[in-house]
Amino acid sequence: MVLTLGRLAEQVGGELQKGDPDCRITAVATLQNAGTGDVSFLSNSGYKKYLYTTRASAVILSPENSADCPTAVIASSNPYACYARAAALIVPPPAPKQGVHSSAVIEDGCDIDAGAWIGPNCIIESGAVIHAGVQLEGGCFIGKGSVIGAGSHLYANVVICHDVSIGKRVSIYPGAVLGSDGFGLANEAGKWINVPQLGSVVVGDDVEIGANTTIDRGALDDTVLEEGVRLDNQIQVAHNVHIGAHTAIAGCVGISGSARIGKYCMIGGGVGIVGHLEITDRVVVTGMSLVSKSITEPGVYSSGVPAQDNVTWNKNYARLRQLDRLARKVQSLERRLSDSRKQDDC
Amino acid sequence: MVLTLGRLAEQVGGELQKGDPDCRITAVATLQNAGTGDVSFLSNSGYKKYLYTTRASAVILSPENSADCPTAVIASSNPYACYARAAALIVPPPAPKQGVHSSAVIEDGCDIDAGAWIGPNCIIESGAVIHAGVQLEGGCFIGKGSVIGAGSHLYANVVICHDVSIGKRVSIYPGAVLGSDGFGLANEAGKWINVPQLGSVVVGDDVEIGANTTIDRGALDDTVLEEGVRLDNQIQVAHNVHIGAHTAIAGCVGISGSARIGKYCMIGGGVGIVGHLEITDRVVVTGMSLVSKSITEPGVYSSGVPAQDNVTWNKNYARLRQLDRLARKVQSLERRLSDSRKQDDC
Amino acid sequence: MVLTLGRLAEQVGGELQKGDPDCRITAVATLQNAGTGDVSFLSNSGYKKYLYTTRASAVILSPENSADCPTAVIASSNPYACYARAAALIVPPPAPKQGVHSSAVIEDGCDIDAGAWIGPNCIIESGAVIHAGVQLEGGCFIGKGSVIGAGSHLYANVVICHDVSIGKRVSIYPGAVLGSDGFGLANEAGKWINVPQLGSVVVGDDVEIGANTTIDRGALDDTVLEEGVRLDNQIQVAHNVHIGAHTAIAGCVGISGSARIGKYCMIGGGVGIVGHLEITDRVVVTGMSLVSKSITEPGVYSSGVPAQDNVTWNKNYARLRQLDRLARKVQSLERRLSDSRKQDDC
Repeated sequence: MVLTLGRLAEQVGGELQKGDPDCRITAVATLQNAGTGDVSFLSNSGYKKYLYTTRASAVILSPENSADCPTAVIASSNPYACYARAAALIVPPPAPKQGVHSSAVIEDGCDIDAGAWIGPNCIIESGAVIHAGVQLEGGCFIGKGSVIGAGSHLYANVVICHDVSIGKRVSIYPGAVLGSDGFGLANEAGKWINVPQLGSVVVGDDVEIGANTTIDRGALDDTVLEEGVRLDNQIQVAHNVHIGAHTAIAGCVGISGSARIGKYCMIGGGVGIVGHLEITDRVVVTGMSLVSKSITEPGVYSSGVPAQDNVTWNKNYARLRQLDRLARKVQSLERRLSDSRKQDDC
Repeated sequence: MVLTLGRLAEQVGGELQKGDPDCRITAVATLQNAGTGDVSFLSNSGYKKYLYTTRASAVILSPENSADCPTAVIASSNPYACYARAAALIVPPPAPKQGVHSSAVIEDGCDIDAGAWIGPNCIIESGAVIHAGVQLEGGCFIGKGSVIGAGSHLYANVVICHDVSIGKRVSIYPGAVLGSDGFGLANEAGKWINVPQLGSVVVGDDVEIGANTTIDRGALDDTVLEEGVRLDNQIQVAHNVHIGAHTAIAGCVGISGSARIGKYCMIGGGVGIVGHLEITDRVVVTGMSLVSKSITEPGVYSSGVPAQDNVTWNKNYARLRQLDRLARKVQSLERRLSDSRKQDDC
Repeated sequence: MVLTLGRLAEQVGGELQKGDPDCRITAVATLQNAGTGDVSFLSNSGYKKYLYTTRASAVILSPENSADCPTAVIASSNPYACYARAAALIVPPPAPKQGVHSSAVIEDGCDIDAGAWIGPNCIIESGAVIHAGVQLEGGCFIGKGSVIGAGSHLYANVVICHDVSIGKRVSIYPGAVLGSDGFGLANEAGKWINVPQLGSVVVGDDVEIGANTTIDRGALDDTVLEEGVRLDNQIQVAHNVHIGAHTAIAGCVGISGSARIGKYCMIGGGVGIVGHLEITDRVVVTGMSLVSKSITEPGVYSSGVPAQDNVTWNKNYARLRQLDRLARKVQSLERRLSDSRKQDDC
């Protein structure tokens, strides 16, 4: 969509600090690749080096960067959010479809709103409810009795097992699996007995679930994602996990059974969270950390070990293997030094 | 299914220690959410706090917790296994289906038992053999010449590549991929040449394979999962891995090529196992550890680093980066202290 | 295919050092399982113990192992690459198919080459271009406007979202997802706003992408895999990542947004790579390391912590938690010892 710069600034809640309000904006681009008609943005300071020479027609940025910008400026205290709104206006998502593709398999007893779209090769089992505006791309599977809330968008090959409840305006990316049986095992004489997984998965409104992410159904009670949660790709959410509203979790995180994560948390990529623990609200866990105990105070937590050149690391790791011995040596040295001083004092 | 408490205790191998044997049990529930007609259980001591006030009609627990239970009691030395059997009785799985859905694509030359169910949009390539009672939910792909043993259940969108052999009563959850080519690469002048992956995957009886887990076919010999193995979601099993009977592996584990894992092992979430090594029977590896050498003795092994507050961790990590230097300083101190003593002795 | 040993040696670029050039080779096998008619190979020295007793008809190996081989020998300075070529000759892949399966759903406005194969239940959206020789196995989804280059092979249930560009002779294994929206989030007052993901994914020629691997589309510019890249299973490649030519990445690796990885790199399994950093060419990162800063020099980098028995590890970890304190103690000891020496000198 084409917008004037003045109109754009107004609609995205920014202030047009420099530039012609009648300038036409037709696209979005990065600072380094933008040209005439493009609006760009500066949010991560690591990219400021590209600001000075950008050929964009306008840049969305923080007021303190305005003076350094050679182009028209839309200033905002939150330029990234402001840019997100601008991009959604200028490049709107495709219009939703309606109807049921002839190749879709719809079992008896489904309730499919006339304003929903059921794409090719989708399978909707009996008792499923598909609300208005839902978009199911190709090859999605919706199990018995599951409910997909209004305006939700399931991309290709998403699997929703039986009796799962999905809120409104939820996006689920390709290959994600919701409601598969949890890993519930009882051991008897060395062999595993399956514990029936009788709970479900409940997903709140405005949640996003990344590609190939898996969310297991609860053993008895439900696995719950509250409203506004953001899950990246390839995350594993075990049975009976509870994730609080507006928490964002990056890719490749594994969350063990019955862990309870608070609201407004941010969990970095590759983090592991042990089961049956609780993380309070507003906790940040940095990438590749292992959360093995409950976290009761908001703050930033870490245990990721950054890489070094292999020779140095091997030397350090050889010491880490014997760190307790090293600590005992230090204690012993402290004692010897104290003893020798006492002797000196005699 | 409705059962009397007496009948239930008998069928699950527990002892009705307290309560009316004619009490009717209609459902299962957690201690905190149970009501009249529900049987609950206590296995993890962390949940004992809910026992005192539970409204369940009966609780399955260890004899030592019996006195603390306000309700009828089914006592068992293994309450979790006992509960698993109870839940399977009270909430039996849906009856298996039979037949071939009209939308399924069946190539010529397949052998499909009349007592199997081939769900919508499944694809069965030539030469595949589907035994009695097999349940293929929607969108499964069974490649040329693969064999699915009697009573196995493949959930939606499972992919079995060509010539894979699956045992009896195996469950494979949505999105799992068995028999994809292993990561076999030869390097020549910096470029990669693919090594043909000519082995297959052989899965024993009573195995479970989690959602979006991937198991590569062998390079020459087969990748093997022995009977009773349990794999959680999002596990990567590389070519020619061998996993011994009744071993359970939690989510997000990566197992490199030709690793050999023993029987009755338990591998925690997020563990990495290096290739071409051997782990003996009855080994436990805790979450997010890296197994880089063979383990020849049963026992528990770890290297996961639990998270700390970020400021403390950064200080500790700064020291870890120079741990070898620290250890040398301690050695030097030891020498200096010994020398100064010798001087004192002179 | 049956080949004489002489012909085989010639075709794979090896030297027939011992054995009858007319001996017929019919199959390939491991040293320990080979029999008459099989050619085997020795590349990893850990398997040399099987060389002495192999019953293969011939073995491909390095010249220095020739004397220890009881059978015919094809010698090569790169026996693994030589074997890869031999296996591809002796066990050629199945012939490519042509045509469109009757169950495939082809939207209007696609351009599908007559020499391509569109398997059962595939979905090809409008504007997609499928070049000659492409093989799409069952259940693949090709989104609007995507292009699949000549000779590429997509295994079952692969999802290619809209406007993705795939080069020639690319293999994509089951369940992989290319072009899903990146994890682009702006935060406003604690809630997440989606940043439209308007870039795409561009995959060069001769790339391989493993099962259930996910590659997100760029936010503005594209996510790029240069020619010859090899990705194993269950890898997460975030938006705007750039992977240089001939780099190989093992399973379960997570690469955060806008990371730039050089050419000819090797990244071990389970590695995490932080966003917005750069790794130069010819870098090796060993398994389960965390790359948190740019790497500007070629070489080997590590931070994976190998497992120990749990009791020892717990003791060591308890010290690691207080490593900064330990280091301060050592500094204090150094000072005290220097002080006491000075006193001695007085």
